[in-house]
Order: sequence, then C-alpha cells, then structure tokens
Amino acid sequence: MERNGRKNAEMRPVHIETGLQKYADASLLWSQGETKVLVAVTIEEGVPSFLKGSGRGWLTAEYALLPASTQTRCAREAALGKQSGRTVEIQRLIGRALRRGLDLERIGETTVKIDCDVIQADGGTRTAAISAASLALALAANRQVEAGRWPKKALRQSIAAISVGILAGEIRLDLEYAEDAAADVDLNVVMTEAGAFVEVQGTGEQGDFSREQLAAMLDLAAGGCREIFSIGAAFREGKV
Amino acid sequence: MERNGRKNAEMRPVHIETGLQKYADASLLWSQGETKVLVAVTIEEGVPSFLKGSGRGWLTAEYALLPASTQTRCAREAALGKQSGRTVEIQRLIGRALRRGLDLERIGETTVKIDCDVIQADGGTRTAAISAASLALALAANRQVEAGRWPKKALRQSIAAISVGILAGEIRLDLEYAEDAAADVDLNVVMTEAGAFVEVQGTGEQGDFSREQLAAMLDLAAGGCREIFSIGAAFREGKV
Amino acid sequence: MERNGRKNAEMRPVHIETGLQKYADASLLWSQGETKVLVAVTIEEGVPSFLKGSGRGWLTAEYALLPASTQTRCAREAALGKQSGRTVEIQRLIGRALRRGLDLERIGETTVKIDCDVIQADGGTRTAAISAASLALALAANRQVEAGRWPKKALRQSIAAISVGILAGEIRLDLEYAEDAAADVDLNVVMTEAGAFVEVQGTGEQGDFSREQLAAMLDLAAGGCREIFSIGAAFREGKV
Amino acid sequence: MERNGRKNAEMRPVHIETGLQKYADASLLWSQGETKVLVAVTIEEGVPSFLKGSGRGWLTAEYALLPASTQTRCAREAALGKQSGRTVEIQRLIGRALRRGLDLERIGETTVKIDCDVIQADGGTRTAAISAASLALALAANRQVEAGRWPKKALRQSIAAISVGILAGEIRLDLEYAEDAAADVDLNVVMTEAGAFVEVQGTGEQGDFSREQLAAMLDLAAGGCREIFSIGAAFREGKV
Amino acid sequence: MERNGRKNAEMRPVHIETGLQKYADASLLWSQGETKVLVAVTIEEGVPSFLKGSGRGWLTAEYALLPASTQTRCAREAALGKQSGRTVEIQRLIGRALRRGLDLERIGETTVKIDCDVIQADGGTRTAAISAASLALALAANRQVEAGRWPKKALRQSIAAISVGILAGEIRLDLEYAEDAAADVDLNVVMTEAGAFVEVQGTGEQGDFSREQLAAMLDLAAGGCREIFSIGAAFREGKV
Amino acid sequence: MERNGRKNAEMRPVHIETGLQKYADASLLWSQGETKVLVAVTIEEGVPSFLKGSGRGWLTAEYALLPASTQTRCAREAALGKQSGRTVEIQRLIGRALRRGLDLERIGETTVKIDCDVIQADGGTRTAAISAASLALALAANRQVEAGRWPKKALRQSIAAISVGILAGEIRLDLEYAEDAAADVDLNVVMTEAGAFVEVQGTGEQGDFSREQLAAMLDLAAGGCREIFSIGAAFREGKV
Repeated sequence: MERNGRKNAEMRPVHIETGLQKYADASLLWSQGETKVLVAVTIEEGVPSFLKGSGRGWLTAEYALLPASTQTRCAREAALGKQSGRTVEIQRLIGRALRRGLDLERIGETTVKIDCDVIQADGGTRTAAISAASLALALAANRQVEAGRWPKKALRQSIAAISVGILAGEIRLDLEYAEDAAADVDLNVVMTEAGAFVEVQGTGEQGDFSREQLAAMLDLAAGGCREIFSIGAAFREGKV
Repeated sequence: MERNGRKNAEMRPVHIETGLQKYADASLLWSQGETKVLVAVTIEEGVPSFLKGSGRGWLTAEYALLPASTQTRCAREAALGKQSGRTVEIQRLIGRALRRGLDLERIGETTVKIDCDVIQADGGTRTAAISAASLALALAANRQVEAGRWPKKALRQSIAAISVGILAGEIRLDLEYAEDAAADVDLNVVMTEAGAFVEVQGTGEQGDFSREQLAAMLDLAAGGCREIFSIGAAFREGKV
Repeated sequence: MERNGRKNAEMRPVHIETGLQKYADASLLWSQGETKVLVAVTIEEGVPSFLKGSGRGWLTAEYALLPASTQTRCAREAALGKQSGRTVEIQRLIGRALRRGLDLERIGETTVKIDCDVIQADGGTRTAAISAASLALALAANRQVEAGRWPKKALRQSIAAISVGILAGEIRLDLEYAEDAAADVDLNVVMTEAGAFVEVQGTGEQGDFSREQLAAMLDLAAGGCREIFSIGAAFREGKV
Repeated sequence: MERNGRKNAEMRPVHIETGLQKYADASLLWSQGETKVLVAVTIEEGVPSFLKGSGRGWLTAEYALLPASTQTRCAREAALGKQSGRTVEIQRLIGRALRRGLDLERIGETTVKIDCDVIQADGGTRTAAISAASLALALAANRQVEAGRWPKKALRQSIAAISVGILAGEIRLDLEYAEDAAADVDLNVVMTEAGAFVEVQGTGEQGDFSREQLAAMLDLAAGGCREIFSIGAAFREGKV
Repeated sequence: MERNGRKNAEMRPVHIETGLQKYADASLLWSQGETKVLVAVTIEEGVPSFLKGSGRGWLTAEYALLPASTQTRCAREAALGKQSGRTVEIQRLIGRALRRGLDLERIGETTVKIDCDVIQADGGTRTAAISAASLALALAANRQVEAGRWPKKALRQSIAAISVGILAGEIRLDLEYAEDAAADVDLNVVMTEAGAFVEVQGTGEQGDFSREQLAAMLDLAAGGCREIFSIGAAFREGKV
Repeated sequence: MERNGRKNAEMRPVHIETGLQKYADASLLWSQGETKVLVAVTIEEGVPSFLKGSGRGWLTAEYALLPASTQTRCAREAALGKQSGRTVEIQRLIGRALRRGLDLERIGETTVKIDCDVIQADGGTRTAAISAASLALALAANRQVEAGRWPKKALRQSIAAISVGILAGEIRLDLEYAEDAAADVDLNVVMTEAGAFVEVQGTGEQGDFSREQLAAMLDLAAGGCREIFSIGAAFREGKV
C-alpha cells in the first residue's frame, strides 16, 4: 500500500492554526496530514463531587467525530442519544493522558475540560487529539499563570502521542485511514517529553505480535513523539 | 448597545472558506462577523421508510453547537444523551427551509443530509446555517449534475435567512449575541431569491410588536437576504 | 376542499367545559370544531434552579397528543421514551406565549405549569392550546388573587392564537386537519388583547408566500383572535 | 375514615360518556365516583413479530396518569423519558385481563390497542380502567362484527375489576384515594361474567391478612363485579 | 407433564450455599431444584429523599436474570439500556414483601438493598428470591444487632414465598419452567411465619379459576411456605 | 503493601468450577484469589447485519459487575439505564481478545456470545474474564465439533491474560484490588499460547514508565500467561 511517498518511519506533516474559537481558554486546529482535529480547552471553577473539598483540580476530555468527517458519513451521536463504545474509550484515554501533563494538586478546585472534535478523519485521530490537547493545554496554562490564577509549575510536562502499525509485515509510523483499516496490529503510544511512557496500547485483532516487533514499534513511536515535541516547542516560541 | 460601528440596517461581513472537509459532497465554513458555522452536505442513496417506493428524494438537517463555541461552554448533547428542544427546533427549521430549495421530485430516492456545526456562536447561528447550507447545497448539486446523477433543474432556488430584532425600540439587522440576549423581539426570516417568504418566525418574549414594527423588520430582512444572495452568487462565480 | 359550509374567514365554533379535573388550580376542555384540548394549570412553590433567589416566578408548558386523538393512532411518547421534535417545539411555543400573559415579577418564586393534552386532534391543536391556556390561567390567577397569594396585577393580559393557511391560492382561517395537510403555507399567530403580536410563525413547506399574502393572513388572524377574546370574556362573565 | 355516606360494601356510582374521541374504534370516559378514565380501543392490522405467521391476533394496553389528574401534580412520563414501574405493572395487568375477554384465535393477525388515560385519579384507577376497557372492547368488537371483519364469537366474555381493602380492621369495597392511602391491605380482583377469577392481587404492605379476611374481601369483590356487569349490560342495551 | 417423580404437593429440594460474596452484609446462593438465585444484602447509611428526616429506614430490591440463566439466552438489560416490565414488577414485589419482614421504624435512616441475580432460571425465580432474601436479611440483621448498630427487634418476622399452578386441571406446587409455561393459572403466594398472607398474586392468562381452586392452591402454598420456614430455621441453627 | 505472603512474580491460585449454568453452551466460575468471574458461552444462529451473507461468524462479549461484587456496592447498570465507560471498554477488550482465539471463517454465520459476570471483584477482573472465557470457549467449541456443527480447526488457539503493575517502584504480577488502587502503572497483557501478544495495555495515571520497566513487566506477564495455559490444559485433561 502506497503512502504518498512517505517512508515507513516518517510522520505526516503537522500544521497548527489558531483563532477559530475565541471564547475557549485555548483552541487550535491540529492538522496531521489529512486528519484535522479542533481542540478547545475550557477552565471552569469547581470539581466533580468525588473531589469536592479535596483542594485538588480535575481534567476531563470529550471526543466526537463530526458526521461529515469520515469517508462515509457517520451518525451524529447526539441524535442517536448515545456515545459509542469507541468514543467513550477514546475520550477516557485522552483524559488519562492529559492528566499526566497537569499537576492537579496545584490548580485548586478547578476543572479543565478538553473538547476534541474531529473535522476530518484520516487515521490517528485519537493520538492527534492528545498531541493537540497537550499543546492547547500549555497555551491555556500560560494564560492562567500570567493572570495569576495558577502557580508557575501547574503544567507538569508536555505529552505527545502517535500511532504505529504492522501492515503486511512492515512497521509503519503514523498510519493513514487506509493503512489503519488494513493493519494487522495497531499500537498507540503516549509519551512524556522525558521519553517515558504514559500509555502503550497495542492491539492485534488481525494478527498478533512478537516481543521484537513491539520493540521496533516503540522505537518508531519514540521518534515520532520527539518530532511532535519539537513542533510544539517551535509553535510556542512563535517559530511556526 | 454598541455594535462596533455597524448601522442598524447593516449586516455583518460574511467570509466563506472551503477545503476543511474533503469527504463531504460539499462543505464550507461560513463566518458572519464572529459567528462561524461549518456546513457539510452529504448525499446518500435511499430515503426514509415513509418515502420508499415514492420515487422522491428527501432532505434533512442536523445542528449542533460545539461545546466551546459559546461564551460559557455548553454541555455536549451526545454526552447528555439528548438533543435539547432548541437544537431540535433549529434543525427542523433548517430542513424545512432547505427543502424549498431543492426539487425533491427530480432527485430520485436520494437523501440529502445537511450538517451544521457551530464552531463559534455570536448570534444568528440558525440563519447563518440556512444561508450557508443553501450555498453548499448549490455546490453539491452542481457536482451531481456534472456527474450526470441529477438533472439540471434539481436545484430549485437559493434560500437565504437573516435575523432582525427590536432592541430598546430600535430595529436592528443581524443581531450579535449581546444584542440578541437584550432584544425584546426577535424575528428570523427565510426568503427565496425571488423575494418570497419561506419562513417568518417572530417571537416577543420580552415584549410584543405591532403590525408597523413587523413591516419595518421585514423590510430590513429583505435587504439582508438580497445581500446574502449577492455574496453567494459572487462566490459561485469565483469572485470571492 | 369543503369546510362544512364555513367561510374562509370563519372560525370553528368554540365550546368550553370545566369540571373534569378538580385537583388542578384550573382546568378546562376547549373544543374548537372537532379539535379538543384538555388544559390544566398547576401552581407550585419554587422555581427552576436558574431563577432561585431571583424573587421571580416561572411558567412552563407541556403538550401531548393522546394516542387515540389522531386519525391514525400515534405512538405514546412515554412508551417511546422520548418526546418528538414536534412536541418539544409546540410546548416551547405555548410556554413562551403564556409568559407574555403573566407578570412573572409579581408572583414570587412560584412556578405555573400548564398541561395541554389533546383529546381529539382535527388541526390547530397548538393554537387552541394557547387560547385555552390563557383562559385557564386567568381562572387560576383569579383564585390566587382571591386567596391573597398573588397581587391583583399578576395577570398581565389575555393571549389568543389562531392558525391561517393558504390552500390552492385561498386564504383560510382556523384550518381543520384535512386543510392543514393540504395547505401550501401555514401561519400560526399569537396576539395580545391589545392587538399586538407575540408570535408570528409562518411556514411554507409546500410553497412560499408574498408580502401581500402575509398581510392578508395577518388580517384574518387578527379577526380570529378578537373573536377568541370575546369568547373568553363571555366565559369569565358566566355568559357562556 | 368517612366515605361520604357510602356503606362498606357499596361501590361508587359509575357514569359512562362517549363521543370524546371519534377516531378510535371505540372510546368512552368512565367515571367511578371521582375517578375518571378515558379509554380508547384502536384496532390495527398486523401483530408483533413473535406472532407473525401464527394467524393469531394480539391485545395490548397502555396506561398513563395525566399530570393534573392527581392531588399533587405528577410528572409527565414522556418528559421524564421513562414509564414508572407502577405504570408498567398496571398496563401489563390491563393487557393480561383483557386478553381473557377476546378470542385471539378468531381475529386473525390483528392487534387491539387499549389506551387508558386517567383524567382524574381518586383511587381504583387500574380496576376502573379494566372495567371500562372491557366495555369499550365490546363496542369495538360489535362494530368489527357488523362490518364483517371479525366473526361473531370474537368477543369471548366481559371482564370486570374492583378493589377491596382493609382499613382499620374494616373491609371496604371500591376504595377512594384517601382510603387506599390509609389501607393496611389492598386487593384488586378481576373476574369474568361467569364468576371466575382472572386475577387476584392482594398486597399487605402495612399489614398482612388471614384466610378469613381474604374470603370476605373476595365476597365483596364478587358483588362489585356483578354490579359492574349489570351497568355494562344496561349501557349496551342503551338503558344508561 | 412429568415432574421427575415429584408429587403435586411436593416442593423441589432447597440447597443453600454461602461464601460467594464476602463484601456484602450477607449473601447466599439459593438453589430450589434447578433454579439458582444469588441474593446479597447491603446496608447503607441514608435513605431516599422522601424519607429524609423521618428517622425511618428503607428497604429496596433489584432483580435480574443473568443472560445465560435462561434456556434461550436473554438480552442483558444494561446493554438494552432499560429494565423490562417483568423485571420492574418482580423487584417491586420483592421489595414490598421484604419490607414486611423488617421493622423500618427501628433501624434509623438506613437503607437495605437486596440484590437478586438469577444464575439459572427453571421457574419460580421471584418466589425463590423472596425466600432467599428473607434468610439473607436475617443473617445481615443478626450481624447488625451483634455489632450494636440495630436493636434486637429490628427483624420483625421471616417471609417465605412459593408458586402454585393449575396445569391440565391438576394443582401443583412449586412449578418448574416447563410446567409454568404450560400452566393455565399461576399463583404466587408470600406468607409470614405466623401463616398470614403478605401477597397473593393469581393470574389466569390461559384460563380462569374458581373459588374452590383458589382455596386448594392456597392450601398447597401454605404447606410449601411452612417447609421453607423449617429450612431457614435449620440453616440458621447450623443444621443444614 | 502486603500481599498475603505472595512473591512479586507469583500469581494468585486459580480455581475452576462448572455446573452452575446448564443452559449455556459452556459455563464456568473462575476464581483467581478472591476475584470470581462467572463466564458463559452461548452460540446462536445468525450474525450481525454487517456480516450477513459473508459466510463468516462473529464473537462478542458482555461484562458486568454484580452490584454486591465490590467492596462498596456499585449501582446496577440496568437500573441506571446505561453501561459505564469502563464496562464498555472492558467488554470491547474481551471481545477483541477472544476473536483471536476462534477462526471466524470456519464457523459459518454463527455468533458466539460471551457473558462475563463478576461475582466478587478483588482486582484483575478483566484479565480473569479473558482467561476464563478462553477456557469456556474451548469447552463449547469441543461440543460443537463433537456435534458435527463446527469443523475441527474452528478453535484457533488459547488466549490468556494477566495484569502487572508498578507499586512503590516494585513490579508485581496479578494485582489484588488494594494493590491496583495504589499502583502507579497498570499493565494488562493478553497473549497466545505461542507467546505472542494480542493486547498490551499499559497505563500510567499516577506515574509513567520506562522502556526497561515495560520489559520487566512483559517478562512477568509472559510467565503468568504460561501458568494460566498450564492450568487450562490440566483442566481440559480432567486433571484439575
């Protein structure tokens, strides 16, 4: 399967655009190849009941595919009256991953809500959402720090995520939709800037994978995450 | 209440962007001042059961506010498991209005689905959605005609919509959110290119309105709709 | 299409019956031709959370078709687990219209609930429900005033509503179901006793309408509303 | 506790009114004292999937309290999105009881739907609904027979139901709401015209009951059912 | 229909096993022939809102069939998003019956929750659940008394339940599934240790029943309940 | 934290009991320490609509915690009307894992349903469910093969799963609930008998993990899975 000239270890180009949503505490449109995710961060007073009185904050995420984002239009979950199992699984993953980026002990009883709405889906939407959300969270946190509402160290670290897959025996980074649909094994990796793992989710529905394949996939993923951290850093320094 | 130098009879500037959603049959991001609505048209084989065997087509619309589109984040309806009364009312209005634009007798047993997702909400989202949807429908219909799937006259006419309100006694065109929230009377008008009405929905929750006020509001609305038809025509001719 | 000898500008006869529901603060069965709506007003302590502490009251309405009220039995919404879009739209309209009749500032933190249950549906159920609810609200308000619970001016004004339509080019008042189903344009008008508009909802799903047609429809509607106010006044004076 | 001069073994007066719902196959408003139930019978082609191809018919019932029917307004189940356990239990009982009245083998693949909407609830609504539904079913069946759609013996037998209770040691027939709320034991009995039992549902939430008390309650119930059969017969003969 | 050598008046053997659920306040697996019900009692601080401040406790029950418990797998209600009418009816019955066993005035504002999960369903699951729950409640109450949290007389009395049916004219005790499915009349009886009735629910969907048949069924049921009380007493004395 | 004398690399003892559910195609109660999961396999004719006509089979899983299975009673999802995100995630994982064990191409248009009901939850319920389900699937497949309904090679391979965690810097196999709640990192591993990975799900909500820690965790997991395969083999040979 062709991948438009990309090498197996090569990520798709990332493009970041801001300014679509002025009411959010931070918002950006993250394009990774043809995958486009609009991510918004909203910071609200108060915490869910299980944290009331704890002095700690909380972070939660929601995810949706816009109906026209997919090759064949997908049904609107609000109209169905129910989020799918896939949606719930993805938004739980995004929330867990991002909570590693924020020091919930330092933000008081405040809730951070991350909305990830997929405008166009060409594979890797959940990992793109995590990388985008980490960057948007950094932007929002900076504003909170500047406004004196959060201490300087509220933001703990950046988080990045990328997918890797095995396709007809080849290990490929950052799968497009057509690759993802044909892959035997699919691995999503979430990492910290320091190179540690936050999540490793490998699934072999069409095949299983060996210890060596897992190692090779983790190597590719680590390279991808390093590149995402560079892109984020350049963006924050105004270089992109 | 200030309106950033706009006169009472003046519409907000409209900006149209395409290219965000390549899988849809047509998609565009319609900005009217700070209100931004992403509209996508999807054409599917088949019709709902009440039309099966009739040889006629159908058109239906769905509407949603992205959670971060509003000044205070609004809850995601998919997570609530239910569309609000306001959402249902708006998407029924959009569907009714757009069905006037398409000749359902000529498209065979085909369903047109219009998705209106509000990226940023600064008043007038339902009327912006209708104007945007009419333009996107024209783009999609052209492609269907070019591909030989629809006859030339499948598209019946363009549709435009605009809001008008009475605010502290003044009649104003194309209300922003702050104006809308303060208005005594709110009127949404949907018109055809020939200048006829498709929908007239005037509501006076904070006050009622006289026959003369209604006439003055309809005059302003007609002017607004003419301007929207010009913008659409220029866009289709590639002049915008 | 025949209308049983009625002229185009003629309303159906109205008949009002009380005594079916003794526990409500007011209840009446409003028959308008073959359309029959049972309306009950219940007054409860307290207000929804968005008004707590405001010192203001609230009014809300609910609407339902009994399953056997329609020509073909309609499904019971409680059994479906969901109110239809049409139901939600209608009950929002009734609530908005009736809030114009009551001075919510003067009734303290009290909620007025209006239940409109359609016993038999032969067209115009939403406008019949509004006219009936306004009369029932007046009865309930009188009792509140007599009991010293509400001030004399709690009731602001009476409200009436009627439908008008264009059918094969003719403008007709107070459409029956068969007319409504065949109409090109349908207009629902809600007015105050002083002759101002509270709601004007004109819809042209099968055709559009000109400024002149709108004016003619509004004339007919105004006449119909005046007649409804006379009926209500006579009823309250015990003359009916 | 007083019961307005009624003796313990005395039923409340029954009043039957027709003509409220012309679209149903039969409809009547059954008043038993202050309890009023509007019952409609609708006959539809087809049967649920578990009976398709069986050649047999089906009968099912739905029950609801109108919100203003009760002393304190009860929430509308369609708005809650869910029927209560009590509602489900009652409509299952009505359906079971009425299926004993109809010979489902003789009506072909036809479904009889019985809607029981309580207009005013003063105790005994489920038993009143059963008695009323049996009479309405007889009226509808007669029309089916006259129209040649059902054979003569489609209607098997009449069904009647009544409540009995133990209140401060006294056994009373046909409890009003205040009695029902104060009763130690509540028994609902459904009988055939031939004097056999279809359902016997005795519940002692506030107390239990002996074999002797059960016998005495069944005696009273049998008398009540006989009276209901007389009322129904007189009604069908046009004597009421 | 054979019943494996059992006589008509003979109950199926009962076997009681504990130790499956250590976190509950009491839990036991009740086997009655091939019917197996796992019952757990959980005691929680607090009461539902309608009892807050009353000083009284509450008891409520939930019931479910495990999907693989039935001859043909039944759908999981959590996946359907709804409890069936049958489930709701049964859990209301269990709750009512068990509230007769506990003195809610003596346990303070405490809620007892009884979970009845059917592992294998061979008829009579609701009556087995009641008998089992009464025994589990006694075990839990003893622990509460021993721990000084409840007074000695919190437990009012034991409760037992059994089914009886009429099958081809024969009256049989404790129906198995095949018998239940073929029965003309089905009677569930709930009794106290003192021999009084708590619930009598007789249903004749396939036939009706006479006063004499009812008497004979009640005799068999009373014998069955006496046997269940003996089994419970032996179990509590450690003899089983 | 103590673990009752277990070493870090030591699994909890497994105990397998059959005979609780005779109607299922296979059923067993899997105890792993204090965690107890009742697993049933049901084989049904037909496949979901997306596979109709494909000639392939399907396998799907459902998971639930019985309310009294947890230290603090958890709410019954059927009563809530909704499965939690955690439940949906787990049952999707179980289904994916088990589909690797069965050759869906060889079983025709047949659906295998796996019900995993947790009787007692002391950590590791999802991995215990997978190991148990694989064994139950083998039993059911054998019966299908013996009955001539499935070919010999329908069962592809056995599957096992186990959890590993990092707790205060120590890597431990097969976490109990108290360990799981205190763990910094939690890894669930699903493997084939041949030693390949089917799923690797590592999550660091309280901390992240290095490449070396991941390797050490995978080593422990592989050992645990080997032990589970031995237990399953012994069971199938009748040695347990």
